[in-house]
Amino acid sequence: MGVEIERKFLVVDDSWRAGTTGSLLCQGYISTDPERIVRVRIEGGAACLTIKSKSTGISCGEWEYAIPLQDARALLDEVCQRPLIEKQRYRIARDGVVWEVDEFFGDNAGLVVAEVELNAEDQIFVRPSWLGEEVSHDRRYANASLIKNPYKNW
Amino acid sequence: MGVEIERKFLVVDDSWRAGTTGSLLCQGYISTDPERIVRVRIEGGAACLTIKSKSTGISCGEWEYAIPLQDARALLDEVCQRPLIEKQRYRIARDGVVWEVDEFFGDNAGLVVAEVELNAEDQIFVRPSWLGEEVSHDRRYANASLIKNPYKNW
Repeated sequence: MGVEIERKFLVVDDSWRAGTTGSLLCQGYISTDPERIVRVRIEGGAACLTIKSKSTGISCGEWEYAIPLQDARALLDEVCQRPLIEKQRYRIARDGVVWEVDEFFGDNAGLVVAEVELNAEDQIFVRPSWLGEEVSHDRRYANASLIKNPYKNW
Repeated sequence: MGVEIERKFLVVDDSWRAGTTGSLLCQGYISTDPERIVRVRIEGGAACLTIKSKSTGISCGEWEYAIPLQDARALLDEVCQRPLIEKQRYRIARDGVVWEVDEFFGDNAGLVVAEVELNAEDQIFVRPSWLGEEVSHDRRYANASLIKNPYKNW
């Protein structure tokens, strides 16, 4: 088990795209209960099953297990709630942290968020020029929420 | 992924106990949604995370992963719904099949069920003398149901 400490922001422009290449993520949820989220994710040729406990502030417990790709495909097809989430993830290393910028497709097209994983809740980091409003505490932006209330309906 | 084909019965007396020794199981549920059950189980020194898809008749899809014992303890303590299920499981090999007799504790004390896992839905098997009424299709006997509506409330 690890503790995931993460802050999430909107982006104000497209300047983060310069020189980045992303990878496609497909993920689905077996449980969207905020106290016990269960996610299946495929990225590239690898797959994982992740359990997240109730978040307190910007931290939550996280247990992640690699699973066979064919299991993940079956779980996404047969078990996960609908719809699935598809997004392109761009990783941008900058000033000692790695920003993950997610560009959503499907019913969440138009939504772009930037996340940074921290080692402590009070860790100081440099804000890139393209970083916008913080949405860490807005549950609407949780991926498990986006399958019930997609961005196109906001 | 496997397909689990299982039939479940009550028992009519205690004669199944002769010569058996059981092992203690502790399990909890992250999801009790009948279409996507997620279970954490500790038996002896081993632990597993199991996902079950919607059952059709007596069959359901099952994906099971061994996980570290300390992860399972944390998931049972911090993530699983309350209450947990504790039961003694007895395995009885008889006439080519293995009967698993579960004797429940806590709020389900007094409940004893016998399950047999089959290779096909129409597999013929010999009914032991202690086997009672079949309850395969009665959702109340599903362990994921017993945490919401325990036997003591029936």
